[in-house]
Amino acid sequence: MAQIPTERRFQSNDLEAFVARALIAVGLPVSDAEQIAQLMILADLRGSDGHGIFRLPQYLRRIRAGGMNVTPNIRVVEETEATALVDGDNGMGHLVVRFAAQLAIAKAERAGVAWVGVRQSNHAGPAALYAMMPLERDMIGIYLAVGSANHLPPWGGIDLLLSTNPIAFAIPALQEPPIVLDMATTVAAYGKVKTKAQRNQQMPEGWMIDHFGRPLTDPKRAEEGFLLPIGGYKGYGLALVFGLLAGTLNGAAFGRDVIDFNKDDTTTTNTGQVIVALNISRFTPVEAFKRHVDQLIGEMRNSRRMPGVERVRLPGEQSHATWLERSALGIPLNDALFSDLERVANDLGLEKLSGN
Amino acid sequence: MAQIPTERRFQSNDLEAFVARALIAVGLPVSDAEQIAQLMILADLRGSDGHGIFRLPQYLRRIRAGGMNVTPNIRVVEETEATALVDGDNGMGHLVVRFAAQLAIAKAERAGVAWVGVRQSNHAGPAALYAMMPLERDMIGIYLAVGSANHLPPWGGIDLLLSTNPIAFAIPALQEPPIVLDMATTVAAYGKVKTKAQRNQQMPEGWMIDHFGRPLTDPKRAEEGFLLPIGGYKGYGLALVFGLLAGTLNGAAFGRDVIDFNKDDTTTTNTGQVIVALNISRFTPVEAFKRHVDQLIGEMRNSRRMPGVERVRLPGEQSHATWLERSALGIPLNDALFSDLERVANDLGLEKLSGN
Repeated sequence: MAQIPTERRFQSNDLEAFVARALIAVGLPVSDAEQIAQLMILADLRGSDGHGIFRLPQYLRRIRAGGMNVTPNIRVVEETEATALVDGDNGMGHLVVRFAAQLAIAKAERAGVAWVGVRQSNHAGPAALYAMMPLERDMIGIYLAVGSANHLPPWGGIDLLLSTNPIAFAIPALQEPPIVLDMATTVAAYGKVKTKAQRNQQMPEGWMIDHFGRPLTDPKRAEEGFLLPIGGYKGYGLALVFGLLAGTLNGAAFGRDVIDFNKDDTTTTNTGQVIVALNISRFTPVEAFKRHVDQLIGEMRNSRRMPGVERVRLPGEQSHATWLERSALGIPLNDALFSDLERVANDLGLEKLSGN
Repeated sequence: MAQIPTERRFQSNDLEAFVARALIAVGLPVSDAEQIAQLMILADLRGSDGHGIFRLPQYLRRIRAGGMNVTPNIRVVEETEATALVDGDNGMGHLVVRFAAQLAIAKAERAGVAWVGVRQSNHAGPAALYAMMPLERDMIGIYLAVGSANHLPPWGGIDLLLSTNPIAFAIPALQEPPIVLDMATTVAAYGKVKTKAQRNQQMPEGWMIDHFGRPLTDPKRAEEGFLLPIGGYKGYGLALVFGLLAGTLNGAAFGRDVIDFNKDDTTTTNTGQVIVALNISRFTPVEAFKRHVDQLIGEMRNSRRMPGVERVRLPGEQSHATWLERSALGIPLNDALFSDLERVANDLGLEKLSGN
């Protein structure tokens, strides 16, 4: 029988400080390191276990191999009143997309909507983080990205030409938590496959198939197959379109140009992302809109359920509950991940993590 | 054994003229009737059989019952440099969304992007028609709509609170036809269910289930069940978010407020739609972008296939091929639909259709 990994909990502040120390140790400026650490741990707080501190060893490996720029000159290369193209200068994705989101919010303040594309960026963690940034200014956020490795063939094909290219939407409510939909265009995100592998768990059928179309359930054999798109050709179509919008239009990588950043630590990824901010007040009074969203959430939640279903959930509800729980009780890290982080601490000569 | 319906072909010009005559007969101004007829028959040319002339009897019934305004005052009620909210005054959806698309294109010319929302509109046919409008000006188009009847419960629920809320994207290429993705957030669109019913065909398993979760394959029993969303909770999330963006934000119907326009010919539907136009030239030179899209299309099409797959297709490829074929050979109408149109001609005292 496989051993069930045990888990210990850590306060988010302690994890944030640890991540920041590690990033500073490999050359990032203090304020950049702190901002990235905050976003990475926010991913863990919201339950995106495949996109938070779990990614730290990989980020550090790439930085130390020279594959990411620790002091990027992030700059606007094209601009109108409502659009911009940002060059991330191969900086960490968290910094680059945060810059883009702030720019989009500022532009949408006047123009009503803003579409900001990014190139020369990198993996930035969960899509929801960035879609949620406009919420603070009573705006709706939309985020698109080209994934950081190709795991998906075109529909009917077997060559891995597409990534799981995710999309996220964030829409504010009044009393209720915001509606936050964060989804890969595949049935499962590749981060979830990595988490299963790291936990020594099998995947359910329907996540991946091999080159002959047979179910693939061992996450350690992930390279022998590919992820399945949602709705068959529809998910393939979405992955393709998001890749054209977030990659090709921005001069970022898409298709055969995408580097597998899980295997290659040195080649510039030229990751592309898009953030859209939409100013609610330019369409309707904000409070009335939020109250209406509350009402619709209630309609869904209080509707009749199929036999055996405990609760009708809204997108983002589970992540919000996880955020509340982990903010109070700490973030669980399993033994394997904890060991990885101990190795990071040893390698960089950092103060080690201590749990609750 | 069920009878297989026979089909005759009709030239698109003849069908357009017939639709226009019918709309004029129920009170629409000539130029509006012609514009609507052109869009409806374009739907048939592209193979959207559930959204073209098939809908004419229903539109006429609603108009004659007073459920749609034949002389609407379509107007802008909110506006910034890059956004607008359009009130369609309960006009036919084709006219209202066309107005919105033209406004979005004009705004995106300067602002780089434009987001135009619509309320007090109606069913407008296939999403692709409107997403494709910005293509002529070297822009990318995106279209979202609240469907005109609820056929989808929230995930885990059984109350029909959501429609199949579709999305469409259109992205231009240089030599290749544009990439046009037009998809409902359900495995099948409700229009396809109606087409199956009208043709006396069964639906495949996976399109619909009944209230107990059992497969429902008889399209004439469609009211006893509901459509399945793509990717389970993901498709539900998309339908919800598109409904909030195209409906709630615009002051249009969503959730319990949505009228089933298949059953109710008189109540104002207050349909909501969104059109986004994105100006490629504000990000990258247009011709280089289109050439790059051609190259990516080639990468997909020429990639290796699974055993038994004849061709890797791009979104919109099939519709483009159908458009070429039907433009040359005419649009096939089955006997049942032809009879419906004969009845329309009799009712309104119109010149009848004659086939090839």
